[in-house]
Amino acid sequence: MTQTAPGIMDAVVMTRGNLTVTTAPVPTPGPGEVLVKVLAAGICGSDLHCVTHGEQLLASAREAVGVDLFSMDDPVVMGHEFCGEIVQYGPQNQQTLPIGTRVACFPFLLREQVVTIGFGGPDTPGAYAEYMLLTEALLIPVPDHMPDEIVALAEPLAVALHAVNRGELGSHDVPLVIGCGPIGLAVIAILKMRGLGPIVASDFSPSRRALAKELGADIVVDPRETSPYESWHDAAAPNDPAHVGRQTLMFPEPLRPSVIFECVGVPGVIQQVLANAAACSTIVVAGLCMQPDTFTPSTAVMKEMDLKFSIAYTPDEFAQAFNHLASGELKVEPLITSRITLDDLPGAFDRLANPDHDAKIIVLPSMR
Amino acid sequence: MTQTAPGIMDAVVMTRGNLTVTTAPVPTPGPGEVLVKVLAAGICGSDLHCVTHGEQLLASAREAVGVDLFSMDDPVVMGHEFCGEIVQYGPQNQQTLPIGTRVACFPFLLREQVVTIGFGGPDTPGAYAEYMLLTEALLIPVPDHMPDEIVALAEPLAVALHAVNRGELGSHDVPLVIGCGPIGLAVIAILKMRGLGPIVASDFSPSRRALAKELGADIVVDPRETSPYESWHDAAAPNDPAHVGRQTLMFPEPLRPSVIFECVGVPGVIQQVLANAAACSTIVVAGLCMQPDTFTPSTAVMKEMDLKFSIAYTPDEFAQAFNHLASGELKVEPLITSRITLDDLPGAFDRLANPDHDAKIIVLPSMR
Repeated sequence: MTQTAPGIMDAVVMTRGNLTVTTAPVPTPGPGEVLVKVLAAGICGSDLHCVTHGEQLLASAREAVGVDLFSMDDPVVMGHEFCGEIVQYGPQNQQTLPIGTRVACFPFLLREQVVTIGFGGPDTPGAYAEYMLLTEALLIPVPDHMPDEIVALAEPLAVALHAVNRGELGSHDVPLVIGCGPIGLAVIAILKMRGLGPIVASDFSPSRRALAKELGADIVVDPRETSPYESWHDAAAPNDPAHVGRQTLMFPEPLRPSVIFECVGVPGVIQQVLANAAACSTIVVAGLCMQPDTFTPSTAVMKEMDLKFSIAYTPDEFAQAFNHLASGELKVEPLITSRITLDDLPGAFDRLANPDHDAKIIVLPSMR
Repeated sequence: MTQTAPGIMDAVVMTRGNLTVTTAPVPTPGPGEVLVKVLAAGICGSDLHCVTHGEQLLASAREAVGVDLFSMDDPVVMGHEFCGEIVQYGPQNQQTLPIGTRVACFPFLLREQVVTIGFGGPDTPGAYAEYMLLTEALLIPVPDHMPDEIVALAEPLAVALHAVNRGELGSHDVPLVIGCGPIGLAVIAILKMRGLGPIVASDFSPSRRALAKELGADIVVDPRETSPYESWHDAAAPNDPAHVGRQTLMFPEPLRPSVIFECVGVPGVIQQVLANAAACSTIVVAGLCMQPDTFTPSTAVMKEMDLKFSIAYTPDEFAQAFNHLASGELKVEPLITSRITLDDLPGAFDRLANPDHDAKIIVLPSMR
């Protein structure tokens, strides 16, 4: 990539599921908005889904919110995990943060029609570009000691924090994390930070299992060799025996329930968890399975399971995740497995289709 | 059926999914047990499932509790919704209740290996027989004013009470009941008793819709003509606007969630609810679908739905349901749509396969 002309920036544009490294006009901040230089951007699994299962993702989002996030026919500049640096203020701003301040931000651009950052066109680009627009009122200034790439992790950690909150774990619960991709690893980091455990985790990939250990999992198994459900049982059994499930007609001897984080998101995993996890358990489904899936409702009914589906986070959870990272309380450096340029982005998407060795890939748009 | 010999009783026995009106020895109460004459017995949907999908039901129960409830090859006397009358005490009893006392009972026979009443053999028969055994310590005496058949409804009402408890409705929640069979109708009765509403309900059958109205539903729709989800929306909209769902990345304008009771239990209904109900809703799955089912996890994830599967009840919930019926606070007479003899039972099972006109059928084993 060569130096771009003034007013023109490098950007990666998706059109109909294809990623192109190209240029776009530097966007102009409107009222209450700021132009920021993108210092770091994380690649999210949902971005991969936009490329591989865009229509299905849009259909599900339409059912959820009633409108289309974007159109597959229009160009989209993705990237909603980021760290920026204030370059220019638009009109009608408070300007409390000086130009040059590094910022994190809940990924909304608060226009009359709210733009979810990372799912808009090149005029409101996501972080896979040199510059982007943010809403001043949502900016969170970044302390000096905090690296750009850690700031970009606030977003996926907010997703994990929300998933853990959805699990409503008590202090005696023994969590089980199925799948140690970026979401599973982030869930492990949050559980560890909260002192919940022992944390049992499972993944087919040796490098991901090593990462799970690094991020705080206590018992990590290869499901080809060891049942994660049996490992969970061994880990949970010595715990407080008073902490048991509902005693109902089905369960004269109440069983100890678990909280399972399903962080795989491929067909068949939900049924596998339903069939193998302890009765009366809560399953937080944080993996995003884009295909139709089959399960046996009678298994779930007989075991009185709870399935809690989870994808996003509240503004407060985003701020909490950021603060935990800023304070150093939440340690997630091992999550970052490589750093790339915008030019490398399409190749990185290909690589992440079989992500045995990668967890979080950070894009550095200013790096050449 | 002719008068049986002494020590011999009439009973309906299921073997390999076939129901036979036959005779069996009157069982002998063991230590701490009583022999009761069955005054009334309700037919439960799970009994129908035992006949039509016995192996699948057993497999799901095995996954849940680790043991087989019964074997399809062995004779089973079903019937776990009942009212009895104490006829004879076994050894080692307190005998606080006189012979002739009418009783309700949590359907467990507390032997070293607990028998779930209604899923055992003719030596520990369920209520589709003239006599059955109960555990003295679990007996609840019935007040004189309470009809036998209402006592038999304590069990299905406990199932509904448990399902409603699983829904964790707040006072501003507007419940939606999909399917007005016996479970849906019982859920409506519990919701009505608790003053929750307006209650929106849906069923294809005109007679079931009429029953739903009688039992307390406020808005009852034929889903062929009116979307129950739109009816719910119309009913919920004027309510407390402050009672809204999670405001997350997905939902900048938080939507009002609902609590939906899925009381149909056939493939496709869960996905239909996921696709049409408001985001962040809780779906209590009280219908027992015996076939594998297909759904789109991405819909559930994007909408952050909760699926809470429900089948049983705690001993306390059983006692509560009984007390609500005894006090008259819970009015469910319309649930009973016919009264039959043991001879009629196999035919009633056939009729309930297409239950447009039936809700709860009560068997009167002493009636000829």
